[in-house]
Order: sequence, then C-alpha cells, then structure tokens
Amino acid sequence: MEELNQKALFLGPKTENSRFFKDMLKWMIDDHISWRDNFHPDDKPTISRAEKQKSDFKATLQRTAEALVELACTLQQNSVPWFSPRYLGHMTSDTLMAATLGYILTILYNPNNVAYEASPATTAMEIEVGKQLARLLGYTTERSWGHITSGGTVANYEGFWVARNLKSIPYAIKAVMPELVENMDDWQLANLPPHRILDLVDRVKEAGSMDRVLRYSARGTGVQAGTLGKVLVPQSKHYSWVKAADVLGTGQENLVFIDVKDNYRMDIDHLKKTIDGLASQKIPVLAVVAVVGTTEEGAVDEVHRIVELRKTYEKQGISFYLHIDAAYGGYCRSIFLDEDGGFMDYDVLKQSLREHNILHPDIDWPKQDVYDAFRAMPEADSITIDPHKMGYIPYACGAVVFKDKRILDLISYFAAYVFEKTEDNPLLLGSYIMEGSKAGAIVAATWMAHRVLPLNITGYGKIMGCSIEGAQRFYRALRAAIPLELKQKNYIVYPLTEPDFNMVDFAFNEASNTDLEAMNELNQKIYELCSYKSGPVYYHRFIASKTDLSYEEYGDAPKTFVANFDIPEKEWDRVRSVFVLRSCVLTPYLVGNTTFEEYWNHFMKTMWKNLLNVLENS
Amino acid sequence: MEELNQKALFLGPKTENSRFFKDMLKWMIDDHISWRDNFHPDDKPTISRAEKQKSDFKATLQRTAEALVELACTLQQNSVPWFSPRYLGHMTSDTLMAATLGYILTILYNPNNVAYEASPATTAMEIEVGKQLARLLGYTTERSWGHITSGGTVANYEGFWVARNLKSIPYAIKAVMPELVENMDDWQLANLPPHRILDLVDRVKEAGSMDRVLRYSARGTGVQAGTLGKVLVPQSKHYSWVKAADVLGTGQENLVFIDVKDNYRMDIDHLKKTIDGLASQKIPVLAVVAVVGTTEEGAVDEVHRIVELRKTYEKQGISFYLHIDAAYGGYCRSIFLDEDGGFMDYDVLKQSLREHNILHPDIDWPKQDVYDAFRAMPEADSITIDPHKMGYIPYACGAVVFKDKRILDLISYFAAYVFEKTEDNPLLLGSYIMEGSKAGAIVAATWMAHRVLPLNITGYGKIMGCSIEGAQRFYRALRAAIPLELKQKNYIVYPLTEPDFNMVDFAFNEASNTDLEAMNELNQKIYELCSYKSGPVYYHRFIASKTDLSYEEYGDAPKTFVANFDIPEKEWDRVRSVFVLRSCVLTPYLVGNTTFEEYWNHFMKTMWKNLLNVLENS
Repeated sequence: MEELNQKALFLGPKTENSRFFKDMLKWMIDDHISWRDNFHPDDKPTISRAEKQKSDFKATLQRTAEALVELACTLQQNSVPWFSPRYLGHMTSDTLMAATLGYILTILYNPNNVAYEASPATTAMEIEVGKQLARLLGYTTERSWGHITSGGTVANYEGFWVARNLKSIPYAIKAVMPELVENMDDWQLANLPPHRILDLVDRVKEAGSMDRVLRYSARGTGVQAGTLGKVLVPQSKHYSWVKAADVLGTGQENLVFIDVKDNYRMDIDHLKKTIDGLASQKIPVLAVVAVVGTTEEGAVDEVHRIVELRKTYEKQGISFYLHIDAAYGGYCRSIFLDEDGGFMDYDVLKQSLREHNILHPDIDWPKQDVYDAFRAMPEADSITIDPHKMGYIPYACGAVVFKDKRILDLISYFAAYVFEKTEDNPLLLGSYIMEGSKAGAIVAATWMAHRVLPLNITGYGKIMGCSIEGAQRFYRALRAAIPLELKQKNYIVYPLTEPDFNMVDFAFNEASNTDLEAMNELNQKIYELCSYKSGPVYYHRFIASKTDLSYEEYGDAPKTFVANFDIPEKEWDRVRSVFVLRSCVLTPYLVGNTTFEEYWNHFMKTMWKNLLNVLENS
Repeated sequence: MEELNQKALFLGPKTENSRFFKDMLKWMIDDHISWRDNFHPDDKPTISRAEKQKSDFKATLQRTAEALVELACTLQQNSVPWFSPRYLGHMTSDTLMAATLGYILTILYNPNNVAYEASPATTAMEIEVGKQLARLLGYTTERSWGHITSGGTVANYEGFWVARNLKSIPYAIKAVMPELVENMDDWQLANLPPHRILDLVDRVKEAGSMDRVLRYSARGTGVQAGTLGKVLVPQSKHYSWVKAADVLGTGQENLVFIDVKDNYRMDIDHLKKTIDGLASQKIPVLAVVAVVGTTEEGAVDEVHRIVELRKTYEKQGISFYLHIDAAYGGYCRSIFLDEDGGFMDYDVLKQSLREHNILHPDIDWPKQDVYDAFRAMPEADSITIDPHKMGYIPYACGAVVFKDKRILDLISYFAAYVFEKTEDNPLLLGSYIMEGSKAGAIVAATWMAHRVLPLNITGYGKIMGCSIEGAQRFYRALRAAIPLELKQKNYIVYPLTEPDFNMVDFAFNEASNTDLEAMNELNQKIYELCSYKSGPVYYHRFIASKTDLSYEEYGDAPKTFVANFDIPEKEWDRVRSVFVLRSCVLTPYLVGNTTFEEYWNHFMKTMWKNLLNVLENS
C-alpha cells in the first residue's frame, strides 16, 4: 500500500478537496435514499402528489428552509475557523473527511448504541474501536475493555467510578467471604493492588457470591467518604477531576493536588512525599491520576516514574489505582508504534521518523523522558483518550479503556455473564457503561478514521508528526524571534516551555518593563484582539486561546518563565499569576518551510498590529 | 401563518421529500465551502494542483472512499428501518428534516458547547433551547435552568446529583452558620423543602459564606451513605436510576421501589405507606422520582397526586425533592399548550384537538388523570426530557430542566456569579453541568426543530397527535381483532393497557392454552421473527420490540393482563413472568383510515405467517 498523503485527508483550509467531499456526500445520500425506497417496494407512498401541491405543505417545507438559512447565517457569523492555520487556539482543527462523512452518513440511519437491537451495525463498530484503542495504548486486546463516551469528562468519571468501586471490594469480601482475606487488617485491605482485587473477585464469582459482595461494595452500600482514601491528581489536572470527586460522592476534600515542576509535569518527589505522609497517618491512596498532555501546557507526566514508584510501594504493602488522563495526548502514542503495532525502541523510532518523513530531520523529538512516559502507559489500570481531540473526529467523542475487563463486574447493571455469553456484541451496552443512549454516528466516524488511518507510525503517526513539527517550528520561531519595535519600544516574546507534545504557550512583554501586572495586562489585551472578545473571529488575522498560570493552581512553577522577562522575583511573589497566550498546534499544515514561513509572517505582522492597537488605545 | 403539514416534516418512508432534502444539503455544503474559501481570500491553497495528481494523494482519497463504501454496506445490512410504519418497536422513528439537516450543517463547523469561545453560535442556542424546554414544562423561564445532555441517563444523574447536594446543604449550614437553622434538629434539617433550602442558600451567599458551606456539603465532604435518606422510585423506573444510586455514591440499598398498579402507574397508596413507614423510623426521603412515560409501558404516573401528597406531608414537617423522569413523555406536554404557551383547561383542550384536527374525533384522549398529571409537572424540582425521543431529533440528545436556577450554586465548578455576570452566555458551560465537551451540532438540531415546530398544540402538538392517534388506533384494533385461525387453532391477541401516551404492549395466545410458560414461549418466538434475531430486519414485514413483565420487577401488577387470556391465577403464581411484544408508535404515518388499514392488514398477515412459522417449527 502506498504511504498516506496527509493532504488528502481533510477538506482543507481552501476546501482543496471540496470536489471529492461533495461527490461522496452526493453518493451517500443517494445510497441512503435507495435503501429506504427498496424497503418493501410495494408499500405505497404516504404522501400523494396532490398533497405536495397544497399550500400548507409547501409552507411547511419553506419553514424548514428558512430556519436552515437562519442557522447557516448564525454559524457563519459566529463560528471559529478551526480549519485554518491562522487558528492556533484550543485543541481543535479541521476534522478528517473520513470521520465527517461517516458521521453524516450514519446520522441518516440514526443508530443508538445503548442496545444492540437499536444499532446492529454500530455496536459492533464500537467494540472494534474499543479494541483498536486498547492496542494503541499497549493493552492486550483480549484482556482489556474500551468504549466510546460522550467526552473526556465522562471517561474520567468512569475511571474514577471503577477505581472507587474496586477499592471498596476488599472490605465487601471481608464482610461476605472473610476466609479470602484472612489475617488482613484494614490497612492491608485498602492497599491490595488492583489486579489482586480482581483475582479475589474471580474467586468470589466461582463461589457464586458475587451479588452479595457487590451489595456490600460501594455500589450497594454507597460511599462512606474518607474511608477509601485520597485521590492524588497533579495541579495541572483538568477541572473534570474536581467535578468527579463531587459527582462520585468521595468529596472534594479527599482530592490532593500534587505540585508540578516548572515544565508543568507532576513533581514525582512531591508525589512520593505525599504518599509517605499519608501512609504515616494510615490514610490510604485510592488512586493516582497522571496526565498525558495537560490541558493548559500539553505537558506529559513521567508515567514511567509513577509506575516505578508504585512497584516500589507495593513491596512496602502500599498500592493504589493508576488512571491516566490522556484525553489530549493519547492518540500521540500511534507515532511510537510500528506497522505491526509494536512499541519501537528509541533508536528505531528516531530512524523511522526520518525514514517515513514524519518529522523534519532538524527536529529532535521525543526527548527520552517523553518516550519513556508513553512506553509505560500500559501499566496504568485505565486511560482516558478522546477521539475528538487528537483523533481529528468531530464532537462529541471521548473514550475510556481499562486494562482488565474483569472490572465490568464492578459497575455493570446486569451480571457480566450476559456480556460474556454474547462475546463481541453486548446486547445492552448501556448496562456496562456510565452513560445510556449514545449516537452510533459518532462511533462510525471514529471507525472510519481508524480504517483510513491505522493507529501506528504511518497512519495516525503521519498527522501527529505534522502537528508536532508545527508546534516545534512555532516554539523555535518564538524563541528566535527578533523583538518587535513599535514607537521606540521593543516587545519581546518567549514560549513557556519546549513542548512535550504540540502545545505552545507564550507571552509578550515590553523589553524594559518589570511590572508583572502590566505584562499580564498587555497579554490580556493581545488575547482579546485574537479572540471572540473583539468581534467575530472570522475577521481576525490570527486566533489564539489563553490561560492564567496562578499560584493558587500551580504554586511557584511559573516563576522560571516570568524570570525570562527580567521581571524580578518579588513581582511574582506580589502578583502570583501570569497570563499567557495558548496555542494548540493541531493544524496539519504548518509543515514545510514555505507554508510555515508564510504563516509565521502573518503571525508576527498580526502581533505587531495588535501591539500597535493596544498602544494606541492605552 | 398557515398550519403545519406534518407530512412535509420528514424525509418520509418512501423518501417522498428527497428532492427538498437533497436541495438543502447541496445548498448547505456550498454555503459552508464559501465560508471557508472567503476566510482571508489571499491565503494561498495549501495543496497544489501538482500534489493532487500524485499517486499517493489519489490513493489516500481512495482509502476514504473505500472505507465509506464499506460503512454504507454495513449500515444498509444492519440498520433498522425506523422510518417505516412497519417499524413499531423502540422509541424511534424517522427524524425531522429540520433537525437532521441542522445537525449535518453544524458538524461542518464543529462547535463544542463546553465553552463559549469554542461555540459562540451554539452556546447561545443551547441557552435558548433550555428556556424553550422550561416553558414547555411549565416553569418560569426567568427562574429556571435547562440544558442539553448526552441523553436521559445523564440527565437523570444530574437531577440526582442536585437533589443529593441540596439535601446535604442544611447540615452544612448548621456547621457553618448555625444561626440560620437555630433550633432545628436533624430530622427537621433533613425535611426542609427544596425552595426553603435555596432561600437559606441566598442568605449564606449574602453573608459571603457560600464557599465554606459548599465545603461542608456533600460536594466537599463526600457522601456518608444513608444519612441523606432514601430515594423512592417506581418499579417501572428506567434502569439508569439504579446506576445513578451507584455512581452518585448514595448506594443501591438506599433506593426503595414503589409498587405499580395494573395500569403500570406508581401506586400512590404504596408511596404514602412507604413514606409513613420511613418517617416512623426517622429515615428521611431524599427524593421521589415520578415517571411520565415509563420505558416499558408508556404509563404516566399521577404526578398531581404526588404533588398533593408532598403538600400534605410538608404540613407534617416532611418533605423531599421531586424529580420527574419525562425522558420519554416530556415533549407530549406541547399538545396541552395553546399557541401562547398557556396550559389549556380540559374542555378547551378537547375542543382545540378537534379544531386543529390533531386527533380523530372518535379518539378520547387524554383521560382526566393523564391530563392532571401533565398539568402538575411544573411542581417538580427538576425534569428529564429527551429531544432524541419524542422530539424526533437524531441521537444523542437529552435534556434536564430545573425549576429554580439557584441550584447552580450547588454543583457548578466556579462560583455562580461568573455565570450571572455574562447572563445569557455562560463562558464555560462545562462548569455548570455534569458533562464537559458537547457537540454544538446536536444543540443546533434541536434548535432547528423548535424553530420549525413551536412547543405547543399546533407545533409539536401536531406530531404528538399523529403518534397518539396511531397508538390509539393500534390499541383498538388489537382489542377488536378477530382470532387468527391456523391449523384448526385460534390465536387471540390482547393489548396490555389502554395507552396513557403512545406505547402499546400486547401478547398472543392460543385460545385454549392455559399454560403461561407456553404462552411466553409463543410470544418469544414471534418476537424473534420480528427482530434482528432472525436475520437482517430489513427483510422483515413487521418489526417490534419486547419486554418481560416479571414478579421480580413488577410484583403482581401483570396478573390482570394474564387473566385476559383465561390463564388461571395459579399459573401466574407459578411462572411469575409474562413476555409481551412492545410497540412504541412514534411513526407519524399511522393516521387516516386508509393508511392505518393498509398497515394493520400488513401486521395481521405478518402475524399469521409468523404464527404459522412457529407452529411448523415446533
């Protein structure tokens, strides 16, 4: 098979592939129409030709047409041009034609993946997609379990739900089958490693006592907050974790935030200190959450070190559930996999990246620690991964994958044997997941994308490469940027950190300014000129997002960045917050010297104009 | 404005409106393409003509095309023809063209309603749709709060979440501002009516102590299962309520199932007895859930009697949160509203139904108690309502509406004033709801449908009428059906109950058979011939769903139905389960004598053939 040409995957910034897109769309609708028409061809039409001539009939059609025109106008006025390389804001970009077309076609059939009966085609696709994602994340497809969710938030909830119920099982076993946990005290029960708990569940099932054990687990008795221990999340966590602690009933006071370092990765030393501190008070750790691709900085936590830490602790009788929130970074793992799905050695990877022209030879990515983090992912008990982020699938499509499908016994509404009996086609998917009804269309969209782009270096790896290269180029250009001169003042720009993945945060400052508040104000104003805040973004030359890095959320981690601007440390201690522009470089187009140069020049010119605008209006 | 012609709203069983649909689709895509092309017209294309001629470019396009063909084949083979009046199974039907087209158009722009910045157009639409639904349900739009969810399950979770956190607030106030609840003991705190708790919250906010109170509420401290009391749901509840008790951490053992009567409505006497019993043990009631449109029977609980009961109890110092699960029946309320949105008096309604030709004059619907139930809905504290059910919107689209928007303070991630400041456009919708990322496209679909069909008698009421009339006709035809004669045997058929709304359950039996197991087996086999179980449903003449009414779930409620078949009572006591075929009559086409007769004849012929098939293979 010929290598993928990533330019043939998207409709394109200038709708370069519009003819193909329209041809497919036309074919699809005709195909669907013939499906309807051929269903019992002898059934009479329900609408006569005479009826269609009636004025109320025509007026009703007209109502739909007019509403559609209104919708189209509203969308044109108030939508964000994700498709353009001028958009470097949130985790959005053009979407894959395969996904968009598959989504649209399937809406016409409107399957509901809550039950097999309502989605014979797309339930099977969801199971297949679940297995593909499991393979991507390094899990054994036979032992794991993955499925689509409505987004990363719900996927995180589901991971939290499983962790919570799993951790309550040893106590339930003690109540129902004490012989299985003989001689274990509460501390030992609280620190059983996840796989050992699942082994005990097997024995409970063999003894036919599963229903009783479940009744004594968190599911049956509810949560007695505090007893299951603390959930440790990095300061850089997505806010859904704070919501999760509320929703799942464990309580926000049982969340502990672990410091991040100045590269915005979890501080593993602080994690260790925290666990030690809790252990000394006999407070268990329910779960640790690592982030692969933080929402605000794109940082990749050192998963390998957390995994090592857990192994060390297990020797001391301490264990916890490990979830990875890779909603953002998960698909990036495809770049590390060879065409047989194997995780490549570091040197082989580097060579493959060159051989397949995935990254420009000048770009040194990944660093060893990012590589190690991705390699260690399959050690986690569950992982969140969002197709609607780096899968280039339209909204809304998240996913969660569990290492060991035996966890289904802890959360499914029916006894899991119902599922086992029918193997690949669960009759009521809604009873094994947190949600209920679910669009088969979005599942088909993901299935289509995975069909066109295998989850390996020459499939998705190709677009990951474009994205990473774009981010690296942007980062380097920002580092090397000559100060912008306006009205006898020089404006400098610095990026926050070298991107672990594809996000670049940055800020401007007037070269002689040492007032952090003034600098924040400047960047706030620039942001406003690059966002919906200054009118329809359609008319903007460059669009970014922003974030506030405050002491409250990040401790002193942003200090290093602020120091780049020659702003005295005491300013940070006074203001304790730095406002930065945030660019997720998802666009696959910022590659090649010519295109990058073109858009970089647009960017610098726009920034110059924006600074002028700020100056003149201040 | 001319009255709506409901035949002009759907693509149609024989794609009668295909020309219109295709014209709109073509217009839409061209409109979107021009939007992309006109964004910075001077930006160069990213793909050259030469590039497009490359073989890898062509091969990549081909990959998408081939995947699409594969998807189309799979869908055609394994999809369910919801669009046909031959499909009378689950709560599915053809979807509104307005909704489908709006959905498709918006996918091209791909907004994400998690944040205003990612969806300037569709966040505003979501707020508007929320208000429309609030109005439909009888709430004051200024005081209420509603939004789209990914489905009814999540909407139910959110109602449960609010109820749980609300009920924990009085204890939190006691800890932080005891002066507000002076002289109240735990029983009184547990029994404060929802609106009184929210009044106290206002005073807490005025005192600037809200953050502290939240920290002491379930959100902060987590759940201490059991302390907040029991959640009372009817036996006929959707299984998401059982999942909710697990997810929300209150525990399944704190759910109490209230009996249903032989019309499958909650037994209000049993509800009363249960509350009395709990009160005598000083166990509070966290919430009561009523169902408007049960999943298996379409029954409408007597909401008005539950509301009365709560009023009576409040005089005795007992109160609870009231949620209505109207995922299925909610949109039906539109038939009760006049064109100004007022809830019509019973006589006026009856007259309007005739005047606007909503129902055939022979059809006596609604019965007084169904009317009263719909009338009383706005007394509830929150309501689940699914656009993807009776809103005729594609999947996945649920919604939840709260009577009093002050509840936002209990669940939102940020202090609610952020929302108040920006009024109609919350900057981060994801921080006020349970979910995060959400497709703006499905919101636009709902907005479009509401634009074309106002939520009143002459808008949605028209299609509700078609659906209700179809169900009534089907019910009556089943009651009046002459036994089918096959091989010297007579097969009789009975419907389960007169439909409160639009669902008809029914079963067959051989006239002389008095063995309930044999009858169940017969209906199971008929079901298999009417479902995916006997091969692709595309080739079936009639498609139904099914349900098992067992003692375990329903107590003795099904006894009356079984007695219709002259099956002795002791058979019920032995078998304790009756298998019925289940038809949700969502199709808007089973109206008019000719069309109904045509499909009724198809149905009876198909059943005759199915019975023959069963007989010959047994």
